[in-house]
Amino acid sequence: MTKRPGPQGGEGAPQVRDLPTRIDATGRRRESDALGTIEVPADRYWGAQTQRALVHFSIGEDRMPRAVYHAYGSIKKAAALVNGREGRLAGWQADLIAHVADEVVSGALDDHFPLHVWQSGSGTQVNMNVNEVITNRAIQLVGGVLGSKDPVHPNDHVNMGQSSNDTFPTAMHLATVRSLHDHVLPRVSLLQEAIAAKSRAWYDVVKTGRTHLQDAVPLSVGQEWSGYAAQLSDAIEGLRATLPGLYQLAIGGTAVGTGLNAPEGFGAAVAQELAQATGHPFRVAVNSFAAQGSLDAMVAASAGLRALAVPLMKIANDIRWMASGPRCGIGELILPPNEPGSSLMPGKVNPTQCEAMMMVCAQVLAEDSSVALAGGQGNFELNTMRPLVINNVLHSARTLADACEKLRVHCVEGAELNRERIDDQVARSLMLVTALCPELGYDRASQIAHMAADEGTTLREAAIASGHIGAEDFDRIVDPRKMARLTE
Amino acid sequence: MTKRPGPQGGEGAPQVRDLPTRIDATGRRRESDALGTIEVPADRYWGAQTQRALVHFSIGEDRMPRAVYHAYGSIKKAAALVNGREGRLAGWQADLIAHVADEVVSGALDDHFPLHVWQSGSGTQVNMNVNEVITNRAIQLVGGVLGSKDPVHPNDHVNMGQSSNDTFPTAMHLATVRSLHDHVLPRVSLLQEAIAAKSRAWYDVVKTGRTHLQDAVPLSVGQEWSGYAAQLSDAIEGLRATLPGLYQLAIGGTAVGTGLNAPEGFGAAVAQELAQATGHPFRVAVNSFAAQGSLDAMVAASAGLRALAVPLMKIANDIRWMASGPRCGIGELILPPNEPGSSLMPGKVNPTQCEAMMMVCAQVLAEDSSVALAGGQGNFELNTMRPLVINNVLHSARTLADACEKLRVHCVEGAELNRERIDDQVARSLMLVTALCPELGYDRASQIAHMAADEGTTLREAAIASGHIGAEDFDRIVDPRKMARLTE
Amino acid sequence: MTKRPGPQGGEGAPQVRDLPTRIDATGRRRESDALGTIEVPADRYWGAQTQRALVHFSIGEDRMPRAVYHAYGSIKKAAALVNGREGRLAGWQADLIAHVADEVVSGALDDHFPLHVWQSGSGTQVNMNVNEVITNRAIQLVGGVLGSKDPVHPNDHVNMGQSSNDTFPTAMHLATVRSLHDHVLPRVSLLQEAIAAKSRAWYDVVKTGRTHLQDAVPLSVGQEWSGYAAQLSDAIEGLRATLPGLYQLAIGGTAVGTGLNAPEGFGAAVAQELAQATGHPFRVAVNSFAAQGSLDAMVAASAGLRALAVPLMKIANDIRWMASGPRCGIGELILPPNEPGSSLMPGKVNPTQCEAMMMVCAQVLAEDSSVALAGGQGNFELNTMRPLVINNVLHSARTLADACEKLRVHCVEGAELNRERIDDQVARSLMLVTALCPELGYDRASQIAHMAADEGTTLREAAIASGHIGAEDFDRIVDPRKMARLTE
Amino acid sequence: MTKRPGPQGGEGAPQVRDLPTRIDATGRRRESDALGTIEVPADRYWGAQTQRALVHFSIGEDRMPRAVYHAYGSIKKAAALVNGREGRLAGWQADLIAHVADEVVSGALDDHFPLHVWQSGSGTQVNMNVNEVITNRAIQLVGGVLGSKDPVHPNDHVNMGQSSNDTFPTAMHLATVRSLHDHVLPRVSLLQEAIAAKSRAWYDVVKTGRTHLQDAVPLSVGQEWSGYAAQLSDAIEGLRATLPGLYQLAIGGTAVGTGLNAPEGFGAAVAQELAQATGHPFRVAVNSFAAQGSLDAMVAASAGLRALAVPLMKIANDIRWMASGPRCGIGELILPPNEPGSSLMPGKVNPTQCEAMMMVCAQVLAEDSSVALAGGQGNFELNTMRPLVINNVLHSARTLADACEKLRVHCVEGAELNRERIDDQVARSLMLVTALCPELGYDRASQIAHMAADEGTTLREAAIASGHIGAEDFDRIVDPRKMARLTE
Repeated sequence: MTKRPGPQGGEGAPQVRDLPTRIDATGRRRESDALGTIEVPADRYWGAQTQRALVHFSIGEDRMPRAVYHAYGSIKKAAALVNGREGRLAGWQADLIAHVADEVVSGALDDHFPLHVWQSGSGTQVNMNVNEVITNRAIQLVGGVLGSKDPVHPNDHVNMGQSSNDTFPTAMHLATVRSLHDHVLPRVSLLQEAIAAKSRAWYDVVKTGRTHLQDAVPLSVGQEWSGYAAQLSDAIEGLRATLPGLYQLAIGGTAVGTGLNAPEGFGAAVAQELAQATGHPFRVAVNSFAAQGSLDAMVAASAGLRALAVPLMKIANDIRWMASGPRCGIGELILPPNEPGSSLMPGKVNPTQCEAMMMVCAQVLAEDSSVALAGGQGNFELNTMRPLVINNVLHSARTLADACEKLRVHCVEGAELNRERIDDQVARSLMLVTALCPELGYDRASQIAHMAADEGTTLREAAIASGHIGAEDFDRIVDPRKMARLTE
Repeated sequence: MTKRPGPQGGEGAPQVRDLPTRIDATGRRRESDALGTIEVPADRYWGAQTQRALVHFSIGEDRMPRAVYHAYGSIKKAAALVNGREGRLAGWQADLIAHVADEVVSGALDDHFPLHVWQSGSGTQVNMNVNEVITNRAIQLVGGVLGSKDPVHPNDHVNMGQSSNDTFPTAMHLATVRSLHDHVLPRVSLLQEAIAAKSRAWYDVVKTGRTHLQDAVPLSVGQEWSGYAAQLSDAIEGLRATLPGLYQLAIGGTAVGTGLNAPEGFGAAVAQELAQATGHPFRVAVNSFAAQGSLDAMVAASAGLRALAVPLMKIANDIRWMASGPRCGIGELILPPNEPGSSLMPGKVNPTQCEAMMMVCAQVLAEDSSVALAGGQGNFELNTMRPLVINNVLHSARTLADACEKLRVHCVEGAELNRERIDDQVARSLMLVTALCPELGYDRASQIAHMAADEGTTLREAAIASGHIGAEDFDRIVDPRKMARLTE
Repeated sequence: MTKRPGPQGGEGAPQVRDLPTRIDATGRRRESDALGTIEVPADRYWGAQTQRALVHFSIGEDRMPRAVYHAYGSIKKAAALVNGREGRLAGWQADLIAHVADEVVSGALDDHFPLHVWQSGSGTQVNMNVNEVITNRAIQLVGGVLGSKDPVHPNDHVNMGQSSNDTFPTAMHLATVRSLHDHVLPRVSLLQEAIAAKSRAWYDVVKTGRTHLQDAVPLSVGQEWSGYAAQLSDAIEGLRATLPGLYQLAIGGTAVGTGLNAPEGFGAAVAQELAQATGHPFRVAVNSFAAQGSLDAMVAASAGLRALAVPLMKIANDIRWMASGPRCGIGELILPPNEPGSSLMPGKVNPTQCEAMMMVCAQVLAEDSSVALAGGQGNFELNTMRPLVINNVLHSARTLADACEKLRVHCVEGAELNRERIDDQVARSLMLVTALCPELGYDRASQIAHMAADEGTTLREAAIASGHIGAEDFDRIVDPRKMARLTE
Repeated sequence: MTKRPGPQGGEGAPQVRDLPTRIDATGRRRESDALGTIEVPADRYWGAQTQRALVHFSIGEDRMPRAVYHAYGSIKKAAALVNGREGRLAGWQADLIAHVADEVVSGALDDHFPLHVWQSGSGTQVNMNVNEVITNRAIQLVGGVLGSKDPVHPNDHVNMGQSSNDTFPTAMHLATVRSLHDHVLPRVSLLQEAIAAKSRAWYDVVKTGRTHLQDAVPLSVGQEWSGYAAQLSDAIEGLRATLPGLYQLAIGGTAVGTGLNAPEGFGAAVAQELAQATGHPFRVAVNSFAAQGSLDAMVAASAGLRALAVPLMKIANDIRWMASGPRCGIGELILPPNEPGSSLMPGKVNPTQCEAMMMVCAQVLAEDSSVALAGGQGNFELNTMRPLVINNVLHSARTLADACEKLRVHCVEGAELNRERIDDQVARSLMLVTALCPELGYDRASQIAHMAADEGTTLREAAIASGHIGAEDFDRIVDPRKMARLTE
C-alpha cells in the first residue's frame, strides 16, 4: 500500500526559523489541489482552494468575520497537539502547526484570510484557507518550498482527524462564546448598572405614569427605571443561559458525525485542549449528528441576543419620548447634547443615541429571523447555511454591544430630569382620581374625572364640587407620593 | 364622604340559587357604563363595555382564545377569595364571585365571551367582559336585577384590587403555562420518543450519508435519527426553561405597577392562590414595572416554541426527502399511505404530514417574529400589544403540538425503511474512498475517486487499478459498517 | 380497452329534482376511494378522502377559508361548462355539475367543507372535498346512491381536465382578487378619503412640526395629514398593481404544467368562463410551469398588503401620540371616547382603535414574512406551501380592511383638534428660529436659540437681546403661517 | 440686521487652484460647530460634526455605503448650480462647490467619509460630513484656512436650501436607483437569459416531473426551466416597477416638508439637474410630507428585491437537488466542479454556488423584513430609521446581483444533463399511468399503478396483466413525449 505522508516521513525534525509573518515575494506562484494548479499572489500564504474561492465567491463586500479565523487557529492548535501527543503527527510537526496556529489566533495572519461570507454553506473554503495558510507558513518556517505541501500537508496534517463539517461548527461556537463573554455581556451589564444607578438616584421623583400614552396614576421615575434595569437583568440571564449549548462542540464528528478518520476520543481531547486554552468549559457534543445537522445552539444564542434587543428597543424608545420637546413634547428628560441636531434648524438637539440603538435593535431582530430560517433549512447530515448564521450572530452581537456602550456613555449617564416639568405634570393629571375609588367607588370617581375634564378645572375642584368628598379627605387621599407607594 | 358599595353593604348574605348558566329572555336589555346606556342581547350576561367592544372592534374573525377567559376565571376567583379573607369583600360576595368564576373556568360561560382579538392593546375589554359576565351571573344567582350592578359591581367587587394592566398579563402567563404544560410538552415528548424508538430500531442499518445533498460517508439510519431525537430533546428542555419566567405574575401591580388600590401583599396572595389551584409554582413578579411594561417572558416563551419549530422543520423536510420517489428519488423511506395523493395521478402517495408540519413551522416562525416585534413596542408603563401576543403564542403552541401528534401517529410510527434501496446506495457510493485517506493520503484517495467517477467503475475497481492498494486491504478498510463505527 | 365512465355512459339525461341542500339521514354511510372504504357522517355530502383528511389533519382550529371553496365552485362550474360544450361531458352532466357548483359558490354547502388549513401542501384535500361534495349532491339531485360515484364521478367528471395542482392555485387567485377588490380596496379607499377630508378641513391650522420627536419648524395639520393621505393613495395604487399577476391562472396545466389529460385550450376556455362569471379579466397564465411551481403572484399580493400596513402603522401611531395626554402628553388631537379606557382608572380614554390597527399591522407584517418564506420553498413542479399562503393572505386582507373601517368610523372621522393647545405649542417652539437663518446665518441663529433655551425666555426676547435683529424684522420674518408656506 | 455670509460676501471670485485631493499635514487641527471646538486629524477634510459623530457612533464595523456619499455629491452639485443660477450663491461659489461635488461623486474623496451606519436616524451626520468635506476642500482650493468656514460655509452655502431631512431621502433614492439600474438589473437579466438558453437547449429532453418530491407525470427539462426563466422575467419586471417611486425626490421639502428656507421651485429645479446629470427621470415628490415622513418607496424597492430572492431561492434549491448524488440522489444535473468539495472526503463536488445563492436569498428576506419594520416606525414629520434602510437595501441589491452573476458563470452556464439517468427515471416512473385515466378512468388506472408498485413490475406489465388494456394501446397512449405535449 502506498502510505500517505505521516509522522513516519520525518526522520529528523527540521529547524524552525524565526521569520516575520510575511512573504517577501512579488508576482504570482503556482499552487495546486485536486482540480489542478492555479496562480496565487506570491506574497500570500494561501493556496489553490482559497484562490478558487476568491474567483467563485466574490459576492458583495461581506468578509468572513476575523473571529472565525481566530477560533479556527485555536482549533488547529488543539488538534495538532492532540495528534502529536498520540503519535499521529511527529512531535515537530505538531509543534510547528501549533506555533503557526498561535499566529493565526493572534491576528498576525489576518491579511491572508480574504474570503467572502457567501460561499460553500459548510464553510469549507474557510477551513481550507486556514489549512493552506498554516501549511505554507509552516513550510516557510522550516525552509521548504511554498505550495509543495511538504513537509506539512493541508489535508493530511493540518486538517488531520477533522472535516469542515465538524470544525466550522466548532469555530462558530468558539467565536460566539468569545463574543458574548468578552464583548456583549460586559457592555450590557454596564448599561444595566447605569440604568439601575439612575433608578436609585431618581427613586423619589414622582411622575405621571402613562399607559396607552395617556396620563395614568403616578409612579416614581426610579420605579419606572427599575423596570428597565430588571428587564435587562433578565435578558442578561437569558443570554448567559445560551452559553452551555455553545460549549458543546461538534469536533470529532468529522464528515457526518460518525467520526470517520478521527481516532476514538479525538473530539473529547480537542475539546479539552480548547477548554484549557480559553477558560471556557467546552466539551464534545452529546450527539454529534445533531451538532452537525443542526444549528440549534446558534439559533438559541441568536434568540438570546434578540431577547436583549427587545427590551433595549423599548427602553431607547421610552427615553427619546421622555426627552421629547423640549417645549412641545413630554419633556421630562434632558439628554446630553452630543452634537448639533440639524443642518437646517439651529439649536436642535436630537435623541440620536436612542435612534442608533433602535435601528440596531431592528437589525438584530431581522438578523435573528434569518438565523431561525437558516436553522430549519439543513438537510440530512449537514446544515449548509452556516456562514450566514455566524456572520449574522457575530454582527448582531458586536453592534448590539457597541450600541449599549454608546447609549450608556453618551445618553444614559448624562441624562437629567426636568423636575419642574415633571412636578407640573403630576399636579395636572386627572388620573389622581383613581385614589378615590376605594372610598367613593368607580362610578362616582369617574363622574368627578369627567367633570374636571369637561370644565377644565383641577381634579380637586371637581371633587369637592361633586359633594362626595371634602377638601381635607381629598388632600389626605390624593397624595401622589402615597399613590406611588413611596412612603410605605 | 359618599362611600362606595362594599362589604359593608351586605348585612345579610343573600340566598344563592341553583340555576343553569343561561338567561331565559329574548330581545334586548339595557346596560350602562361611564359613557351611558346601551342595549345588549337579553340572553347574554355581558354588559355595556362588552357590547361597545363588539361594535368598535368587529375586526376579522379572530376571537380572543377561550384559554384567556378560563385563566381569567382562575384569577377572579383567587382575587375574590383573598379579598373575602381579608374582609374587603363580604364572605358571601367572595364566595359568590368564586363560584361564578369556577363556571368561567369550566367553560360553561364560553358563549358569553364574544370579543375579537384586535381591540384595546391592554386587553381591557376582555377584563371587563369577564367582570360584567361574572357580575350579572352572580346577580342572577341571588335574584337581583341584571345590569343593576347590585349587589355585585364589576369594577368595585369583581375587579377589586385589580386592573386590566396587571390581570391581563397574568391571564396570559396562566394560559400559556397551561398550554405548554398540558398540550405542547406531552405531544412533543411523544414525538421525540417515537423518533428515538425508530433510532433504536434502525441503529444497525447503514446508509449513505449526505452532506450538501451529495453522497458522503456512511452512517446508520439509527445514528441519523438519534440526531433528530437529540434535537427535540434539547428543544423540549429549552421550552421548559421558559416556564419560570411565565410563573412570575404581574398581579398586584394594578394600573402602572405601583399596586395603587390593591392592598399590600395582594399580588403575592393571589399568586399563591393560583399556585394552589393550578399546581404550578406561580408567584408575584420580582419587578412589577417590568412585568407590565414588557412582554419579555412571552417573547422568551415564543422563542421556545420557535426553537421547537426549527428542528421540526428540518426533520419533516428530511423525512419527505428520504421518502422521495418512489422510483425517481432517494427512496430510502416508505411512509404510510394515508390518503390518495393526487386527484389526477392515480396511485400517488405524498408526504402530506411532513408538508403540514413544515407549513405549521413556517407559521410559527412568522408568529414568533410578530411577538418579538410587539415585545419592543411598549411605551412607558404598559405594552399595548398584548392581545396580538397571546393570540399568536397560543396559536403557535396549539398548532405545533397538534402537528407533532399527527406527524407521530400518521407518519413516523408507520414509516418503514426500503432496505434494498439503502443497501444498493451504500454499495454504489464513491465516498467510501474516504476510508482510504489515513492510509493513502488525501491526494491519492482523491485520484481514485475521480477515476471511478470518470470511468463509471466501482470504487473498488478504481482503487485496485490505481496500484496504490490491493484487494485485500481495500476490503478490510472500506467497510461501511466499520466506517459508521457500528462495530466499535 | 375498458372505457372509463364518460358522457357515453348517459344515454338519457336523468331528471334533476328540486331538493334542499341537505341530506336527511343519520348515522354513518360508507364511502370509498383508492385506499378502501371509510365511514362518513350520513348527513354530509363529503366522501372518503375528505373523511380521511379530517382524521389525518385535525391540527389546531384553523379551517380553510370559505372563500377558497367559493372560488372552487366557480372553477368547477366553468370547467363543467367547457367540458360539456366540447362534448367530454354529457350536456346534462355539465349542467348538473354547474348547478351544484353554483350552490357551492352561494355558500349553501359551506357546512360540508370542514377541512383544516394544515394539510397537503397542494390543497389536494380541498379539491377532493369539493369534488366529493359536488358529486354526492349531484347524485342526490338525480336520485342516485350517495357514494356510488354514479352517474357523476369526483375524479373523472367533476375534476375532468383538472388537477389540484392547477385548480388550487387558480382558486387562490380568484379568492384573493375577490378579497382585494370587494373588501380591501373599498375600505382602504374610504379611510384614505376620510383622512384627506381631515387634511382639507385642517389645512390652515399651523402646528409645531416634529422631527426626531423634537420640536421642529411649523407646518399645518392639513399639510401633515395630506402626507398620510398621499401615503395611502400610493399604497392603494401599489395594491392594485398586484392584481394583473393574480389575473393569470394556472388552470389548464393539470399535474405539472404540461396540461396532461386536459384538452388543448382547456385552460384558456375555463379562464374565459371565469372572467365572464366574475367580471375580472382572468386569463390563463403565460407560463404554466411558473404558475404551478411558484407562488410569486401571491407573494406580490402579500407585499401589496404589507405596503398598506406600513403606512397604516405609522399613521395610527402618529394619531395616538398626537392624542396623548390629555394633560401630560402632546394633546393636539381629541379622539372619540368610544369606551371607558380603564377598569381601574375612572375617566380614562385610550386610543384603542389605533392600538388595534397597530396590532393588525404587526400581524400583517408577520404573515407577509411567512408568505415570502413559503414562496421560496417550492420544489420542482409544485410549491407545497399553498394552504399556508392563501390562509395568511386572506387573513391579512380581511383584518386589515376591517381595521381600516373601524379606524375610520370610530377614530378618524370623529377626531377633533385641540386648537388652544396647538396654538400654545407653536408660540413656545424655539425652532421658529430657523426662519432667521437666511438673514443671520446658521451660526448666529443657533446662538439665539441656545440663549432662549438656556435662559428660558421666548425666542423673540433672545433674538432682540442678541442685537442681531430688531423687533420689527423679527415679527415680519418669524411668522409661523409664512414659515408653513400657507400664505403662498 | 446682521447679515449672514452670502454671495454678497464675494466681491471678486478667488482663484481656484489645481490641487490633488489630499491635505499635506500631520497631527491635528481644530474645527468648530455650535457646540464648540474639537480636534480633527489634520490630513482629513472633515470638520467638527463628523469628528463628534466618530466619537459618538463608533458602533460595529458597518460604514455608510459609499454610494450614499456619491449620491450626495450629485445633490450638492445640483443644489449649488441652482443656487448660483438664481443668485443666492455667487457664481464662483456655485462653481467651486460643484467642482468639489464632482470630486465627491468620482470617489476621490472617499477616504474622508468615515461614518458608521448606526447614527442619527435622519442621516444628519452624513449630510454634515459631506458639507464639511466640500467646505474644507473648497477652502483649500481657493487658498483659505481650513476650518474657517470662509469663504464657503457648510450650512449657509453647501447646505443652502437643504436639510438632512430632504437630502438624505434624496440621496437614498439616487443611490438605490443607480444600484438597481447599473448593478442589479443587468446581472439578473443575464442570469435570466442564461436560464432561458438552457431551457431552449433542453427543450426536448423529457424527464420525470416531481410534485411533493414524488414522481409525477413527465415534462421536459426545457419546460421546467422555462418556468424558472418566466419567474425571473416577472421578478425583473416587478423590480423595474419600483423605479418610478424612487424617481420621486424629497428635495425641496427641507426640515418638515414645507420647504422653509428653500426658495419656491428649488426642489423641482434640483431634481431636474439630477435628472440631466444621471439620465434618470427624477422629479420632485408629489407630496413632500409623505416623502419625508415615510420610507414607502424604499419599502417597495426592498419588496422588489425580495420578489427576486424568492424565485432565486427556489431555482437554486431545485438545481442543487437535481444535481444531488452523484450516485445516491436524483442526479439529473451535473454542475461544474469549481473546487474540491470537502477537506476530508476526496473527490466530492458540492453545489456551492446554489448554497451561496440560498444564503444570500435568506439574508435578503431578513433585510427586507427590517426595512418593512423600519418603514412603519416613523414619527410625525420624519422617519428616523433611514440609515438602517439604505444600508440594507444597498446591501441586498449588491449581494443579490453579485450572487446572480456567480451563479450564472460558475453554475448555470456550465451545467450539463445526465441524459442516461434522466431517461432511466422516465422509464421507471409509475406516474405514466396517468395517461391511461381518460381511457380507463381514475379508479382502474389507480389499481394498475398500485399493482406495479406492490409487485415491483413495470407499469406496462401491470397494465397488460390487469386485462384493461392491450400492449398496443398501452404503447400508443403511454408515450412520455406525448404526455409532455412536446409533439403537439
